[in-house]
Amino acid sequence: MEFRIEKDTMGEVKVPATAYYGAQTQRSIENFKIAQDINKMPKEIIKAFAYLKKAAALTNSQAGVLPQEKSDLIGRVCDEILEGKLDNEFPLVVWQTGSGTQSNMNVNEVVAYRGHVIHGGQLTDKEKFLHPNDDVNKSQSSNDTFPTAMHIAAYKILVETTIPGIKKLRDTLAQKAEAFKHIVKIGRTHFMDATPLTLGQEISGYVSQLDHGLKAINNTLEHLSELALGGTAVGTGINTPKGYDENVAKNIAQLTGLPFVTAENKFEALAAHDAIVEAHGALKTVAVSLMKIANDIRMLSSGPRAGIGEIHIPDNEPGSSIMPGKVNPTQCEALTMIAAQVLGNDVAINIGGATGHFELNVFKPVMIYNFLHSARLIGDGCVSFNDKCAEGIEPIEANIKKHVENSLMLVTALNTKIGYYKAAEIAQKAHKEGTTLKEMAVKLGYVTPAEFDEWVVPAHMVGDIK
Amino acid sequence: MEFRIEKDTMGEVKVPATAYYGAQTQRSIENFKIAQDINKMPKEIIKAFAYLKKAAALTNSQAGVLPQEKSDLIGRVCDEILEGKLDNEFPLVVWQTGSGTQSNMNVNEVVAYRGHVIHGGQLTDKEKFLHPNDDVNKSQSSNDTFPTAMHIAAYKILVETTIPGIKKLRDTLAQKAEAFKHIVKIGRTHFMDATPLTLGQEISGYVSQLDHGLKAINNTLEHLSELALGGTAVGTGINTPKGYDENVAKNIAQLTGLPFVTAENKFEALAAHDAIVEAHGALKTVAVSLMKIANDIRMLSSGPRAGIGEIHIPDNEPGSSIMPGKVNPTQCEALTMIAAQVLGNDVAINIGGATGHFELNVFKPVMIYNFLHSARLIGDGCVSFNDKCAEGIEPIEANIKKHVENSLMLVTALNTKIGYYKAAEIAQKAHKEGTTLKEMAVKLGYVTPAEFDEWVVPAHMVGDIK
Amino acid sequence: MEFRIEKDTMGEVKVPATAYYGAQTQRSIENFKIAQDINKMPKEIIKAFAYLKKAAALTNSQAGVLPQEKSDLIGRVCDEILEGKLDNEFPLVVWQTGSGTQSNMNVNEVVAYRGHVIHGGQLTDKEKFLHPNDDVNKSQSSNDTFPTAMHIAAYKILVETTIPGIKKLRDTLAQKAEAFKHIVKIGRTHFMDATPLTLGQEISGYVSQLDHGLKAINNTLEHLSELALGGTAVGTGINTPKGYDENVAKNIAQLTGLPFVTAENKFEALAAHDAIVEAHGALKTVAVSLMKIANDIRMLSSGPRAGIGEIHIPDNEPGSSIMPGKVNPTQCEALTMIAAQVLGNDVAINIGGATGHFELNVFKPVMIYNFLHSARLIGDGCVSFNDKCAEGIEPIEANIKKHVENSLMLVTALNTKIGYYKAAEIAQKAHKEGTTLKEMAVKLGYVTPAEFDEWVVPAHMVGDIK
Amino acid sequence: MEFRIEKDTMGEVKVPATAYYGAQTQRSIENFKIAQDINKMPKEIIKAFAYLKKAAALTNSQAGVLPQEKSDLIGRVCDEILEGKLDNEFPLVVWQTGSGTQSNMNVNEVVAYRGHVIHGGQLTDKEKFLHPNDDVNKSQSSNDTFPTAMHIAAYKILVETTIPGIKKLRDTLAQKAEAFKHIVKIGRTHFMDATPLTLGQEISGYVSQLDHGLKAINNTLEHLSELALGGTAVGTGINTPKGYDENVAKNIAQLTGLPFVTAENKFEALAAHDAIVEAHGALKTVAVSLMKIANDIRMLSSGPRAGIGEIHIPDNEPGSSIMPGKVNPTQCEALTMIAAQVLGNDVAINIGGATGHFELNVFKPVMIYNFLHSARLIGDGCVSFNDKCAEGIEPIEANIKKHVENSLMLVTALNTKIGYYKAAEIAQKAHKEGTTLKEMAVKLGYVTPAEFDEWVVPAHMVGDIK
Repeated sequence: MEFRIEKDTMGEVKVPATAYYGAQTQRSIENFKIAQDINKMPKEIIKAFAYLKKAAALTNSQAGVLPQEKSDLIGRVCDEILEGKLDNEFPLVVWQTGSGTQSNMNVNEVVAYRGHVIHGGQLTDKEKFLHPNDDVNKSQSSNDTFPTAMHIAAYKILVETTIPGIKKLRDTLAQKAEAFKHIVKIGRTHFMDATPLTLGQEISGYVSQLDHGLKAINNTLEHLSELALGGTAVGTGINTPKGYDENVAKNIAQLTGLPFVTAENKFEALAAHDAIVEAHGALKTVAVSLMKIANDIRMLSSGPRAGIGEIHIPDNEPGSSIMPGKVNPTQCEALTMIAAQVLGNDVAINIGGATGHFELNVFKPVMIYNFLHSARLIGDGCVSFNDKCAEGIEPIEANIKKHVENSLMLVTALNTKIGYYKAAEIAQKAHKEGTTLKEMAVKLGYVTPAEFDEWVVPAHMVGDIK
Repeated sequence: MEFRIEKDTMGEVKVPATAYYGAQTQRSIENFKIAQDINKMPKEIIKAFAYLKKAAALTNSQAGVLPQEKSDLIGRVCDEILEGKLDNEFPLVVWQTGSGTQSNMNVNEVVAYRGHVIHGGQLTDKEKFLHPNDDVNKSQSSNDTFPTAMHIAAYKILVETTIPGIKKLRDTLAQKAEAFKHIVKIGRTHFMDATPLTLGQEISGYVSQLDHGLKAINNTLEHLSELALGGTAVGTGINTPKGYDENVAKNIAQLTGLPFVTAENKFEALAAHDAIVEAHGALKTVAVSLMKIANDIRMLSSGPRAGIGEIHIPDNEPGSSIMPGKVNPTQCEALTMIAAQVLGNDVAINIGGATGHFELNVFKPVMIYNFLHSARLIGDGCVSFNDKCAEGIEPIEANIKKHVENSLMLVTALNTKIGYYKAAEIAQKAHKEGTTLKEMAVKLGYVTPAEFDEWVVPAHMVGDIK
Repeated sequence: MEFRIEKDTMGEVKVPATAYYGAQTQRSIENFKIAQDINKMPKEIIKAFAYLKKAAALTNSQAGVLPQEKSDLIGRVCDEILEGKLDNEFPLVVWQTGSGTQSNMNVNEVVAYRGHVIHGGQLTDKEKFLHPNDDVNKSQSSNDTFPTAMHIAAYKILVETTIPGIKKLRDTLAQKAEAFKHIVKIGRTHFMDATPLTLGQEISGYVSQLDHGLKAINNTLEHLSELALGGTAVGTGINTPKGYDENVAKNIAQLTGLPFVTAENKFEALAAHDAIVEAHGALKTVAVSLMKIANDIRMLSSGPRAGIGEIHIPDNEPGSSIMPGKVNPTQCEALTMIAAQVLGNDVAINIGGATGHFELNVFKPVMIYNFLHSARLIGDGCVSFNDKCAEGIEPIEANIKKHVENSLMLVTALNTKIGYYKAAEIAQKAHKEGTTLKEMAVKLGYVTPAEFDEWVVPAHMVGDIK
Repeated sequence: MEFRIEKDTMGEVKVPATAYYGAQTQRSIENFKIAQDINKMPKEIIKAFAYLKKAAALTNSQAGVLPQEKSDLIGRVCDEILEGKLDNEFPLVVWQTGSGTQSNMNVNEVVAYRGHVIHGGQLTDKEKFLHPNDDVNKSQSSNDTFPTAMHIAAYKILVETTIPGIKKLRDTLAQKAEAFKHIVKIGRTHFMDATPLTLGQEISGYVSQLDHGLKAINNTLEHLSELALGGTAVGTGINTPKGYDENVAKNIAQLTGLPFVTAENKFEALAAHDAIVEAHGALKTVAVSLMKIANDIRMLSSGPRAGIGEIHIPDNEPGSSIMPGKVNPTQCEALTMIAAQVLGNDVAINIGGATGHFELNVFKPVMIYNFLHSARLIGDGCVSFNDKCAEGIEPIEANIKKHVENSLMLVTALNTKIGYYKAAEIAQKAHKEGTTLKEMAVKLGYVTPAEFDEWVVPAHMVGDIK
């Protein structure tokens, strides 16, 4: 490979001749040879930086501390980043400095040098039209840009991927709940036969879980909407023009179309990432819901002959390399694996969030890496589960009917007629002797056949169906 | 010990002669010999049951399905429970059935038998005036009472213990932030010297963390305010009178003075405890904040001679059994241990929440046990930390002054005057040669002494202090 | 209450007149009002201290730095502690100083003052025969005694409670595996019907899990056998007589009957508690196993009529307060709740272990509290599960037979005869048309009825049964 | 893109014309559109499959159930996979079926079709020389191959990456411990000044942590050495030739050079992955150690002027985009972020391990994904930390000397001369009045100046240095 020489405050560094990045990016590549093939800084962070750098240049220009020509040029490179044209220029990994300084500098270098080239210069020019620190990073510090990029990336993925994914699944389930609202089936508590409900009611519980989960996520957006930018090195805003923090937040809000505001307290915004911890707390709640829902669906669809078998889900692929004809609830499996991952990610985020010191939390990359991972997995996972599984859920009415009719727990309907103790005696004896409830109830003399038929009607035991 | 014989649907059981509880409680004692000395069902749950049973009796009586005399009697025993008069009657542990059925029956038995005695009966009477199932548990199931008790207990402890504890600490810190708002000190990022801020600004970041944490907790109260009661066995409300769910929620709201409402979807309220998962997600966020704050304070107060030593905290006790005169930041240690515990409890709750099946989550006791533990620890921990540490925080101005004046990072003030690269050169050379910044800046010829004194003023580097 | 005045290096303190403890214990009670009713320092730690203080006195006496009379007296009080006679003298909580200094001083005070009384003195005497620091704590520091007590307590509970509990369950399951080794049943993978195995084989997998778990626990005992005692304040052993560390470890080994040795590196033993982290890593592995086993058993016993219903487990108690006759797998529920708790405790321990600084980890109490909790829960939980559930497991042969005979996955036996693709075709068509495998296999012309009967024999599909 | 048509038991699928994979791989791509750009099945698993498929073919050929020509051909393709020539043929993600069936089939298809091409055929041939199921997967099931691949991959990465990485760091630290063994410095407990030790002693504690961690990892290798292969569908070994399980394990051992053996109990090996849980328990222990070590080093090197500043670590890169001349402990930050990640991964693995059902755990991909991630991060992270930080650690002797000489905790040396209480008085008064210890000790009349000088010698307080 061919190289050129770049310089930073520590001296000279050899950089690939055609790379737009410079010395500090190259140092980081060499200093952090950790899982470089699998743990690149997430692309969502790079794009968030593009919005941020463009907005900062604009704000600096409006404040009169950066020539408009430079601001325009910076904006133009940022647009290229957003269009994905410079993807290969961001080779750094998550496992770098905990402030993300090196990724901030990576962006500064790429914007400066690519801008210089657009401006007609050459990568080998000693002086460049744009300076990574003095122009692109003007009125900024890694310490306020990286957390700003975290919030932009987190907010965007939640509203663009996570929430729509959950909603899609929620809507399908709501439709199923409505469609199956009169199908009376056996209830199960403690994994044991219980009193009946309808399949629609059962599914409505899942809908309610997701509705609450969406509300929980939405509750956390406000904290995420606060941007650290303008705090610079330690939160005091050193080296920023007057009004910069509010103006830059407005510019970011306009560029992204999202309701970002400047953080009321910049010291919190640099030194802690509780907004990430809090918002991931909502994501882990949704993961818990998804684990429950996917487990239920895999169990309800179990069989085909020796399981519960009350619903059918789509056959998407052959399920076994050795057992011919086997079909498995693979979407449930992917979704529950995702839930496990999100619950693990939560702990990594908690530890990162708890271990900041003084004016700066230096677990920024690991926190946002895990956050974006979870947000993506839930979003993608819900869509996959929806499209390939939930939409195809159908009741297996023969099995449903058989299960509810055989149930000993229908005896509960007799509680208010003959009392809990006599009802229990009927159920226990019917179980022991293998009879139907009715046979045993009459045999014990507690009810007449006619009373039994009047009082014990599964469809009357499921409450009001709206 | 003397015994009497009690019966349930499975047969006879020997019960301590004077115990108000009956057969099912006794069975649970014998069947679950697990950590009985240390893991009793939390008293907050027993008290929540007292509110619930009283409200249920009242609602049943209002609906005409329970004689008022019985309702009154039930209410009277519940009041005794709330007054703590029957504390010894609840011997069961957390590690029982996952629905909490046995604790529900424990309460049912104690209310019935104590009520019978108040009514003039004897514990040995074969027939009792109140029946545990048919009267005390009327229109209820463990499956809806236990989650209702969970929400009552969780909501109450949050508003009575956790939130006030956090607020107390928050207010003290806010006062300190104000008191110290003009004390300029060195900032630290990456645990390394950085540009200055004031001690008040530093502490204001903690205040902001707690303010956001309080907001996060408050956001979760709405889900907790939903009560499962009225869902009975599987969520359908079997064996309840018309309107029961809404009425009983109103009665609970009135008795507790808290804004409880009936859950919109009872299937979710029995089968999942996402409200607990979500609310604990807020508690773990606060734990993360407290870990950060307590760590900072222990580090800032470190020394007395070979540490950072910028603040003084109260000397509460001798700190060492071998090193005479040693004093340690013990309140910081208790609080960070609490944070670790809460982050562990969070995982137990997540796993419990994720592992419910069909119509009933059967990790109820472990979930509420961990929730109440965290809520209590945070509440008590904040008060202890406040009273014995935060209130006594005082700056050690000599050390603060020395640190800020020696700092090489004051060079940052020169960025906008001479550029980042020359400023870096000054700092690096001053560091290597052990000179002051000013000496090196002048020596390198980048500024005059007068310019340095005008441009590099720590107090001008901390932004606007409101 | 009546009081007396006690003194420590910070001044005077009012102590309950009859308490054997002194000033420092009292300070801790007042300084740490955190969950005092529920989180006492575990009794296992207090007893471990009794072994340790007795051994230290003995070693000091043997080294000639403590008169034998004092040593004997200290030993006598320690014996009283071990006999449980002084249980009320240890009121401190987990949430104290992170070094456990206050609990060490609590023991020092109780031993000194109770010893003084045994020696004929009065609690109100100004000078006492034994001094908490200079005699009872001689050649010790909290910094080496508390971690020593942690290892003694952890090792003891593992060998006395945890391992025996797991073994008891393992042996019962091994017996069941043998008893049921010829009962051919359907296998289930992905919760779906699969090729057959025997019930004994299925259970043998659980036995193997527990065997491996026991091995994992045993592997961690070596690190736990290392004692910090002799390191004193920071690991250098300041203020100890020559050979003290090895001698005191020998004395502890003799008193406890366990193979304790002095830690090779005392700096590690004070500054980190990786032995606790590592050993709890084995406990969490067992928790994972128990969750799997208990889940399987609850699912296999599900029903009685609409579940899997292949095994019967004991009916221990009425299962529902509303559904008469219901019986639930409550022991499975307690055990899975325990597993969730242990997995949560693991995280608290990890965070505590990771957050030590310099010469001392100050998360000692929270680490050992969680460790002992897990060890106890697993031990007690396995015994309860064994006695009340596992021992009573019986096959329900009618259901087992029906499931295996209906299974479409018996087709796997044809793979090696007619190939995977044709076998798949048979299974899929039989499923769709609701026929038996044999009917479809013959109909498709791939086998003759006689071939089918010869090739597809469930009992031939389960491998060699030893 | 051009396509060809492939078939499986469910019908026809369009596959990229030049892809070596077939229908089932393509179905998985389409069915699991989840994080496809970032979560490919780890390459270590693909390579483990190559060993396994080659060994299986060999064993089948030796058993006479597969022609040697086919076996040779399979082996040849496997070699190509191991050489990385077919990397692009494995496009599937972690979030697929929980058994990993699709990745097993991906390998089966690639081996069969690439083999067919090597054999002279064309991808568009209807009949191929090798059949994915009947030849490549012969005597196998996904259910035993995937867990076998998990163990091969896990064992290999531990011995090839993780353990060597830890050892490298351990050896450097051991060298530093030796080099600095006579440098007396202040000890710190509770982050507060304590009695002295040497810098070498302090570092020896880290060495001991890593030594114990290596032992812990080694203890878990035995369980990982057990291979599931030969268990096939449910553990019974259906459709395998006699002796197959032992023979295939021997072949894998020979091919990999690692001591693999057949699992004693195949039911455990399919239904649970406790070996992964257990081994990751050791990895999380090491993560805890690394967090402690890296935290200490960042704190010891803090400053340069307002921190602890007792050691110097290499300046690898400019540390701030706004503060010129700033250098940060970035390797410590990367390593502590890694520790946080590993502790999160641990929870994901625990949940996956705990949530298996009956004969198969279906969290296999998520478990091995997290395991390999942790193993890689620890290995790479230790090497990076070693090369770029630990090797360059140097004492800053001036600061070290100043800290130890000023220390009030040197008073501890007087305990055995004048008693703990008088010593405490000296320290407390010296602290309050800002004097030296000696001044105060003499002033209070407890020692003569000569006694003080004789008794209080830091170098005598650090024990025996070997």
